[in-house]
Amino acid sequence: MFKLRSLVTALALVGSVSVASAWEVLPTQAPEPADNKSSVEKVELGKMLYHDPRLSSTGTVSCASCHNTMLGGEDNRANSMGVQAQLGGRSAPTVWNSAFNKVQFWDGRAATLEEQAAGPVTSPVEMGMKNWDDVVARLKSIDGYQTAFEKAFGKDAISKDTATKAIAAYERTLITPNSPYDKFVGGDKSALSAQQIRGMEKVAELGCTSCHSGAAFNGAGTFQKFPMINDGYLEAKYHFSKDKGVADVSKKAEDEHFWKVPTLRNIALTAPYLHNGSVATLDEAVNVMAKVQLNKELSKDETADIVAFLNGLTGEFPKQTMPTLPATSGKTVN
Amino acid sequence: MFKLRSLVTALALVGSVSVASAWEVLPTQAPEPADNKSSVEKVELGKMLYHDPRLSSTGTVSCASCHNTMLGGEDNRANSMGVQAQLGGRSAPTVWNSAFNKVQFWDGRAATLEEQAAGPVTSPVEMGMKNWDDVVARLKSIDGYQTAFEKAFGKDAISKDTATKAIAAYERTLITPNSPYDKFVGGDKSALSAQQIRGMEKVAELGCTSCHSGAAFNGAGTFQKFPMINDGYLEAKYHFSKDKGVADVSKKAEDEHFWKVPTLRNIALTAPYLHNGSVATLDEAVNVMAKVQLNKELSKDETADIVAFLNGLTGEFPKQTMPTLPATSGKTVN
Repeated sequence: MFKLRSLVTALALVGSVSVASAWEVLPTQAPEPADNKSSVEKVELGKMLYHDPRLSSTGTVSCASCHNTMLGGEDNRANSMGVQAQLGGRSAPTVWNSAFNKVQFWDGRAATLEEQAAGPVTSPVEMGMKNWDDVVARLKSIDGYQTAFEKAFGKDAISKDTATKAIAAYERTLITPNSPYDKFVGGDKSALSAQQIRGMEKVAELGCTSCHSGAAFNGAGTFQKFPMINDGYLEAKYHFSKDKGVADVSKKAEDEHFWKVPTLRNIALTAPYLHNGSVATLDEAVNVMAKVQLNKELSKDETADIVAFLNGLTGEFPKQTMPTLPATSGKTVN
Repeated sequence: MFKLRSLVTALALVGSVSVASAWEVLPTQAPEPADNKSSVEKVELGKMLYHDPRLSSTGTVSCASCHNTMLGGEDNRANSMGVQAQLGGRSAPTVWNSAFNKVQFWDGRAATLEEQAAGPVTSPVEMGMKNWDDVVARLKSIDGYQTAFEKAFGKDAISKDTATKAIAAYERTLITPNSPYDKFVGGDKSALSAQQIRGMEKVAELGCTSCHSGAAFNGAGTFQKFPMINDGYLEAKYHFSKDKGVADVSKKAEDEHFWKVPTLRNIALTAPYLHNGSVATLDEAVNVMAKVQLNKELSKDETADIVAFLNGLTGEFPKQTMPTLPATSGKTVN
C-alpha cells in the first residue's frame, strides 16, 4: 500500500520544473464507469438530488450542505455538521475534482463516487435517513422526481442504485481546469509568478509530490501514513493521531494512521486543513506537513513560496445553473 | 387595520371571472425604494450573501436554508430549523414575490425587504450571529467580499446597511410571472381548464379574495384576523390560536391573532400550510380556511375546483446561475 516515490516525482526531483512531463495538466473530462455512462438527463437529475435537503431526515441537510458547490466544494468548517447539529469526526473533503480520486472518503472506504454517494444519506450524524427504502419512498412521493428519473433511467426507475448513479454522474462534471499551474504546464510561462515557480520547485525538491502526485496531486488513490513523525508539540496541539484512519475500516493494526492522499487542487479555498480540520491556515498546514511527514523546518520564505504555488492550483469553476427542485406534494403528507 | 372588502373583490363578486379588471396579472418588475435602486452588481452581491451559510454562527445556515430558491422559496417544513437545530415558531414564508408584500414576516414587523433581511441573521434560533458587527467583521475577512461590495457600493462599503440592501435588491428579482392564471387573465382563455375556472369563480364567490386580493393575492399588506371563528375541533387539531401574531409585536390586545395575509402564488409548492405549518395538504388548507374564516363547509367538488385553481397560480421560475462564493481566507482564522 505504501508507495515510496512515483516516477513523476523522481523526474521532478532530478530535473527542473521545465521538465514538462513531470507535471500533469488536469483533464477536463473524468473517466466514467461502464455501468454508469453519463447523459444530460442523468447529470441534471444528479444535480437536483445533490442539492435537495429532503434527502435528509429533517429536510435541512443536502450533499451540498457539507460539499458546497458554491464554495470550494466543502463547508469551511473543521468538522461538518449534519442533522440535529451533530458533528462529524472529520473535515469534509472537496467534491470538486473528486472524480479523479481512485477511492473516496478520507479513509478510502468507498471505491467509487456511486458507492460514496450512498453513505452520508443514511449516516445518523450526517443526513440521518433511517434507510434507503425511506429515501426511495420519499423520492417517489414527489411527482417531479418520477418524471426526472424516468427521463434519466426509464419508467419506474427510482431506486438507491439510480439515485446514487445520478449523483455520481453530476459529480463527474465538477472539474476545475485551467488553473495558473495548468496554464504554466501547458506552455504559458507567464501563468505563474517567479515566487510560484520557486514554490513549485520546492514542493518537488522537498518530496511533497511523492504523495501528492499526478494531475490532481492526490497520489492517484494511494494511501499514506500521516503523521509519519510523532512530533509531541504538534500532536498536543492538533491531535492528529486521535483518529486511526484506514484502520477504523480494515481493523488492521498496520493500517493505523493511513489516509487517502487528499488533492491539493483549490486548496486555497478549503481552509481549515487536514483530516480533522485542526489547522486553520495554509501557511501552518504547509509547515505542519513539512515537519511531520518530511522532518523539515521551512524558512519563512520557503513557506511563502509554497503557499504562493498552492494558490496557483485554484482552477476555473464552471458556471452552473441552479436546479429547480420538484415540489413536495401538497396532496400527501411528507 | 381591518379592510372588509376591496373594490377588486366586490367586482369579482358581482361579475363573472370574465370581468378582466377584477383580476390582476403579476408585474414582472418589483417596485424599489428610492434609497436602494437596483444594479447588476448589487443583485449579484445580494445573491452571494443570500446563499452564504457563513452569515450564520455555525456557518451552516443561509437565508436560502429556510427560503430555498431552488424550491418554492421556503423549506417545506412546518417550522424552520436554524443553527444548532433550533426550531422557529412559524413556518417560513416564501421569498418568491415577497417584493410585492407591503410588510414582511408573518406579523408584518418589518416594513421593507431591507429591514427583514437584517432580522434572521442575528436571531438566536435562526442564523445565530451575536450582532451585525460580527457579521460585518466576518465579511471583511473574506477578500472576495471586499471586491464584491466595492463593485456594488464603492470603496470600504461593507456594513449592515449595504449587506441588507444587496440582499433586498436580489430578492426583488425573485418574481414568478406567467402562471396559467396570469395567461388566462392576460387573454389566453385556454390557459386555465374548465375546473380551474370554476375554482376561480368559487374563490371570488366565497370571498377568499376579500383578503387574498391584488396581483399577489396577499391583500397588499393588510392584516387580517385568523382564525375568525373559533372552531373547537380544528383548534384542538391545529392549535392556530396558540400564536398571537401581530399582538406579540404591538403588545396590544386588539391585535391578537392578526396576521399579514400571505400570498397564494405558488401555493402548490409550499406545503405545509398556515402560520404554524400545521396543515399538510392544500385540500385541507382550503377546507380549514373556508371553515374558520368564512364559516363555510365545502363540497368535495368545490374543494377540488379551488385546489385546481390554486395550482394555476404556479408561475415561471427564472433560471438562476449559482453564485460563486468567495473563499474563506486560509490566511486568517475565521
